[in-house]
Amino acid sequence: MIAPALLAAPLGAAAATAAVGDDQLIVRLFGVLAVMLLAGKFSGELFERFGQPAVLGELIAGALLGPSLLGVIPIAGADPLSEVIKIFAELGVVILLFEIGLETDLRQLLRVGPAASSIAVVGVALPFLFGFLYWLSPLTPDAFNIAHGTTTAIFVGATLTATSVGITVRVLQDLRVMGSVESKLVLGAAVIDDVLGLVLLGVVASLVAGATVTLLGVTRALAIAVGFLVAAVGLGLLLAPRVFEVINQMRVRGMLLVAAFAFTLLVAAAADLAGSAMIIGAFAAGLILSGTNQFDIIEERIRPISDIFTPVFFLSIGAQLDLRLLNPFEADNLVVLQIGGVLFLVAVVGKLVAGWAVPWRKFNRLSVGIGMVPRGEVGLIFANIGLNSGVLSPQLFGSILIMVIGTTFIAPPLLKWSFARGGVTPEPGPGRPSVPTPLPDRPAPPSGGPPASDGPGP
Amino acid sequence: MIAPALLAAPLGAAAATAAVGDDQLIVRLFGVLAVMLLAGKFSGELFERFGQPAVLGELIAGALLGPSLLGVIPIAGADPLSEVIKIFAELGVVILLFEIGLETDLRQLLRVGPAASSIAVVGVALPFLFGFLYWLSPLTPDAFNIAHGTTTAIFVGATLTATSVGITVRVLQDLRVMGSVESKLVLGAAVIDDVLGLVLLGVVASLVAGATVTLLGVTRALAIAVGFLVAAVGLGLLLAPRVFEVINQMRVRGMLLVAAFAFTLLVAAAADLAGSAMIIGAFAAGLILSGTNQFDIIEERIRPISDIFTPVFFLSIGAQLDLRLLNPFEADNLVVLQIGGVLFLVAVVGKLVAGWAVPWRKFNRLSVGIGMVPRGEVGLIFANIGLNSGVLSPQLFGSILIMVIGTTFIAPPLLKWSFARGGVTPEPGPGRPSVPTPLPDRPAPPSGGPPASDGPGP
Repeated sequence: MIAPALLAAPLGAAAATAAVGDDQLIVRLFGVLAVMLLAGKFSGELFERFGQPAVLGELIAGALLGPSLLGVIPIAGADPLSEVIKIFAELGVVILLFEIGLETDLRQLLRVGPAASSIAVVGVALPFLFGFLYWLSPLTPDAFNIAHGTTTAIFVGATLTATSVGITVRVLQDLRVMGSVESKLVLGAAVIDDVLGLVLLGVVASLVAGATVTLLGVTRALAIAVGFLVAAVGLGLLLAPRVFEVINQMRVRGMLLVAAFAFTLLVAAAADLAGSAMIIGAFAAGLILSGTNQFDIIEERIRPISDIFTPVFFLSIGAQLDLRLLNPFEADNLVVLQIGGVLFLVAVVGKLVAGWAVPWRKFNRLSVGIGMVPRGEVGLIFANIGLNSGVLSPQLFGSILIMVIGTTFIAPPLLKWSFARGGVTPEPGPGRPSVPTPLPDRPAPPSGGPPASDGPGP
Repeated sequence: MIAPALLAAPLGAAAATAAVGDDQLIVRLFGVLAVMLLAGKFSGELFERFGQPAVLGELIAGALLGPSLLGVIPIAGADPLSEVIKIFAELGVVILLFEIGLETDLRQLLRVGPAASSIAVVGVALPFLFGFLYWLSPLTPDAFNIAHGTTTAIFVGATLTATSVGITVRVLQDLRVMGSVESKLVLGAAVIDDVLGLVLLGVVASLVAGATVTLLGVTRALAIAVGFLVAAVGLGLLLAPRVFEVINQMRVRGMLLVAAFAFTLLVAAAADLAGSAMIIGAFAAGLILSGTNQFDIIEERIRPISDIFTPVFFLSIGAQLDLRLLNPFEADNLVVLQIGGVLFLVAVVGKLVAGWAVPWRKFNRLSVGIGMVPRGEVGLIFANIGLNSGVLSPQLFGSILIMVIGTTFIAPPLLKWSFARGGVTPEPGPGRPSVPTPLPDRPAPPSGGPPASDGPGP
């Protein structure tokens, strides 16, 4: 509570050492958090003024504040603050996915189910194959002292598969097109993508451990991941409306919000323990609570919490970009950049094609493909395992980082452009034709907030 | 992001060790946080139904979940989770004090300035003297193998001085009497109390280090603590309205809230660095922003964040109570309990008398005195330094803990009772007499929220 730094000095004290150790961490945390949030928001504002999604501004603010330039955001190593920032970032993406789930109509999502599955499977298979074959082909330079073996090729392929839904949904929020068919397709495909990614992670982890991959093991892993989602949402939709009806009768301040928040944390933790991902659990929690009568109050109250935590996630992702790697005048960087560039192209093209995986429906295919492009945190986890197990050399790890960060940075402006070009497809109502319509340039802020100010987003 | 705990097992993998280590911490954090929040809110609800302040329910829930009984809340030691919970608790009390500052009218606070100072000085001096003299007197048992020297006596006195404003303002919020003269007096006196406590902390730290305490050093420390508060609020009131007018024109979602939150963190950190306390900085930040045109929007948006973080603070305080110390059938506990009981009485009486330190004004003196009773975190810091430097034996530390926790637990029900008995004094308007009026039994919830439900507090 009290750090008598200046106070202790004039009194010549050994000071309150017991309290000061923790305190300095908290003081630093407060400072770093404040700078991150302010830089992220002002940068986001700047990008929005120039017609770009605000999240791109947050990513770039993160890169500038990261260890490779200003060194404000610690991302790894011995600094205990990096652990705390990581927890805040994780809370941020969990709350974001909860918010998305809350805004999602489950019936609409199920209606796009077959189409989304098709997009997900193509969007996982193609980049994997491309990456795998590229690494085994004679096209890869020999500068990296790592065997061009099958295991490494599988790792390279695996890092190219999983879509980071966090980035895309933020852009869709920023562009105010969350209600469109394209958003539903991207969201559904990204969730399936994550499930597939989890199974692939199990396979990859087995390879590292030198175990043999059995079809039974893969099937079992898939069943667990899918089973959790179905069971949680099914059971939740049955019970949550009644439970929250009771909670809503309670008097104590903040009860409804706290219950919703705690529920989200529990489902996210349960998802992780069940072998699924926390963000999938959080999304499921949101889906479940979207079926309660109180979902609009919950949505309104969770928004300020999302506003504080979510930017920490995007700034942390940006901070992982080592800006020095982008310097082409460094000889070592050239090979890293070259391979990173090829992986980046493969990553983008593989997902873009996925937009055409659903020939039987009409929508803005380019936007759906671009929506699947960002790799973000899941790709980083694959790369991390590869690096730690020695399957990936530090240079190849650098190339993969360039691919991951590159896809993350390119998606927001591309998505903005593709929606402006191809329009959005509204959810088909009865008798209404389902074709893309032009993107609204800047919709009026919803009623309730002051005009052009801090009003709530869509 | 992904912890393939169950997934890795069937695939026989060494698993994603790189990712899993952090992940297990986050999964545990989510679980512990969810249980804390739910237990705190449900317990608070129960207490409110029985006519008691909700915060008492949170404290007791914390004691039950703490390491001495259920072991859900880690509060110290090697468990890295305790550090994270501590950070959340600290954020909680900082946001609470910011909220209080935001709701405070600076002119009203200044109007009670002389009276609050008088209460603070008496409320610090009396408990200190009582504790100091008690420890040097022949009344203390000899069971503790520690010299009954002057240094130990000064420490015992010091732990009895500082009011924990966090507990009291939560009770005042729960009772919906934040607008009363009594609340202003308690709040003002508690802030001055904290400043005096900081100076005393410097003196005590010097004693531990074996340095001599000079009048110059004490004066300088006092000047720094007061100077920071005056300078920050003065400068802030001048600049903040203009800055927030500009920020309010920005488009990006959550800008106003994030700016206010970051501002609070920065002022809190600056207060700590300037030798003042974080909570005083947070209170100053709230006072400053209460002068902006956007203070009502900020107040509305900060409330959900407070609802999530503040309970963590109160549950953490409750968790520090070692319930085993309360077992009188243990011979060792008897002496600890006896000394703890005397310190507790001294602590309560010393602050109660402070309510009569302002003979020239009419108000509910008993409530003001009780409002100053809780010691909470500042007393714990003193005790911690004493324990670590060997000035306090573990047993005496235990007695002090009983006093600190006892005052914290007794204040909410006593405050409720004293307000019901003596009434509240409304802020004197022109021509209106300033005398206590009966406490409203259960005020109607403010408009906007659904009746008797999750509506915003006063």
